[in-house]
Amino acid sequence: MDAVNRQARPTLVSIAQELGVSRQTVSNVLNNPSVVHPRTRERVDAAIKKAGYRPSAAGKALRTQRSMAIGLRLYRAVDGINGAVMDRFLHSLAEEAQRLGYQLTLLTADDAAGEVEKLETLYRSASIDLAVLTDTGMDDTRPARLRENQVPFVTFGRPWGRIATSDHCWVDVDGAAGTAAAASWLRELGHERIGFLGWPEGSGVGDDRRAGWWATVADLPGSAGLSVAVLDDHPSAGVEGATQLVARGATAIVCASDSLALGAIGHFRTVGRLGEAEVPVVGFDDTPVARATGLSSVHQPVEQAAVDLLELAFTVLDGKTPARPQRLLEPHLVQRRLQPFAR
Amino acid sequence: MDAVNRQARPTLVSIAQELGVSRQTVSNVLNNPSVVHPRTRERVDAAIKKAGYRPSAAGKALRTQRSMAIGLRLYRAVDGINGAVMDRFLHSLAEEAQRLGYQLTLLTADDAAGEVEKLETLYRSASIDLAVLTDTGMDDTRPARLRENQVPFVTFGRPWGRIATSDHCWVDVDGAAGTAAAASWLRELGHERIGFLGWPEGSGVGDDRRAGWWATVADLPGSAGLSVAVLDDHPSAGVEGATQLVARGATAIVCASDSLALGAIGHFRTVGRLGEAEVPVVGFDDTPVARATGLSSVHQPVEQAAVDLLELAFTVLDGKTPARPQRLLEPHLVQRRLQPFAR
Repeated sequence: MDAVNRQARPTLVSIAQELGVSRQTVSNVLNNPSVVHPRTRERVDAAIKKAGYRPSAAGKALRTQRSMAIGLRLYRAVDGINGAVMDRFLHSLAEEAQRLGYQLTLLTADDAAGEVEKLETLYRSASIDLAVLTDTGMDDTRPARLRENQVPFVTFGRPWGRIATSDHCWVDVDGAAGTAAAASWLRELGHERIGFLGWPEGSGVGDDRRAGWWATVADLPGSAGLSVAVLDDHPSAGVEGATQLVARGATAIVCASDSLALGAIGHFRTVGRLGEAEVPVVGFDDTPVARATGLSSVHQPVEQAAVDLLELAFTVLDGKTPARPQRLLEPHLVQRRLQPFAR
Repeated sequence: MDAVNRQARPTLVSIAQELGVSRQTVSNVLNNPSVVHPRTRERVDAAIKKAGYRPSAAGKALRTQRSMAIGLRLYRAVDGINGAVMDRFLHSLAEEAQRLGYQLTLLTADDAAGEVEKLETLYRSASIDLAVLTDTGMDDTRPARLRENQVPFVTFGRPWGRIATSDHCWVDVDGAAGTAAAASWLRELGHERIGFLGWPEGSGVGDDRRAGWWATVADLPGSAGLSVAVLDDHPSAGVEGATQLVARGATAIVCASDSLALGAIGHFRTVGRLGEAEVPVVGFDDTPVARATGLSSVHQPVEQAAVDLLELAFTVLDGKTPARPQRLLEPHLVQRRLQPFAR
């Protein structure tokens, strides 16, 4: 990196002085070149280039009161396998934002309070025009706090629990529809004792995924009660849960995540239940490890979520009322056969 | 999200007019409150809060010519398993940037030319102060182009090939030291026929990793020539490469990535070579899937890389000469035993 002497940075005024023209002339060359005599324009252009003058986005931001930036908290990945779906969302949001002429500004925080504070600071200083919240949790207080502080926002994830301000714009993926599709497929494969492996009640996302399984197997007597909750989202917790479910008679398992499914497959492998046919385990999130090993999984349309979220956001920023301000997107089941090396 | 009427956004002037005070008074309350009479200060403060006035970062950026933002291209993950290491780097860079009062501005691009163009535009408009390049490739033209255009930058990754401008600041991880540590460990476990599974010659990163293996096994006659290159970085390519190496007598394999290692383990499993002891396969990058399955792998200190990169960057931005402008960080080998479910 070359040293840049900050003090010597050129300004409209310094370039004007150097050339013996007015500041307005230099400004015109930048913003309204047709009003400047071609010869003058050429001279000024050359001087601007030579000086490395940066016609500041800050100036434009001051005039328009738009920073053209969107604030988003980057979560520390708790579990890299499942964190992958949020990384896909981040990529999609960055691409869609750029297509719309916006930048994505990342922030980090230790907790929800720190996130809200940081977003407020960025918004108050016009460093961002808008916040995108992700990972909406049960009784999430962030929407209410941002609204109180008049920070425009949209959320990727619906409000869960008893939340007063649930009328903000959000986009979410219908997790229940995903686990329902998974359970239906396992039924089509001939399974009647289909278990569900997830997390303890009380997490919006987890309860939603359990509900989709149950709605699909409720009429199968063999599947009644075949639901197990584990505390972690890790393959070893998946082994533990699958062991319980298989002991209780399950021949197939719908999992709340690919991490759990990876462990469930490991258990089936250990007890010699991995044949040549489809593996009777379905994961959730269609993570890279699912694609690499050939695990069937529920795929979330996060690219579409990013597009919809920014459409909602900019409609409201423009003072208009969006069509369908709350959108539940349909996931789809990716059916795979386990790679030979993973059997 | 609440509608925000952009036209009605308050300014210093509108707040001053409303209160019947001068613009300077409002500005003083924001920037130099001690000079304002407490009663006036309180009134102005209340009006600022009520109006939701945003003392603009753009104004500050105009005055200081610093945007307090760092530009970084977000690559589309080619392979999510190995993409994980870049996501770790992104998290670390965002955290370290924020600690230093900077934001990370993400951009997307289709290729190197698009990336450079976007970075130049952002720099010229003072939207970023600095660029961080990652994924440095063979004969990478980006450093030269950014230098030509006077955009300050640092790179995560050393220059590979015949590059003229290799004297810029960079931080990289010593891949050869990582594969050397992996091969040494396999020697300690008693292996004498240790193979290397990587990519065709010509990629800087791949050649570097092969060199570390070779330096460590060159005196083992049984390891001579036990190097195989595959085209993809995918577990199925790993199966293919491991099959060749095992056929040629290899009892242990150092892999250029965790994806390849995952496939190599699959091959060992298929041929019944996974016992209770340490699996004779080492991956690279210590990705989440390595942690989840118990794969030994070389861990890159990307957190340290982020800290060092920004230290170098800001030293140079401040017009000073950094100590050790080119830094090669030592990775370390994480020795694991394969989880029972993955055997």
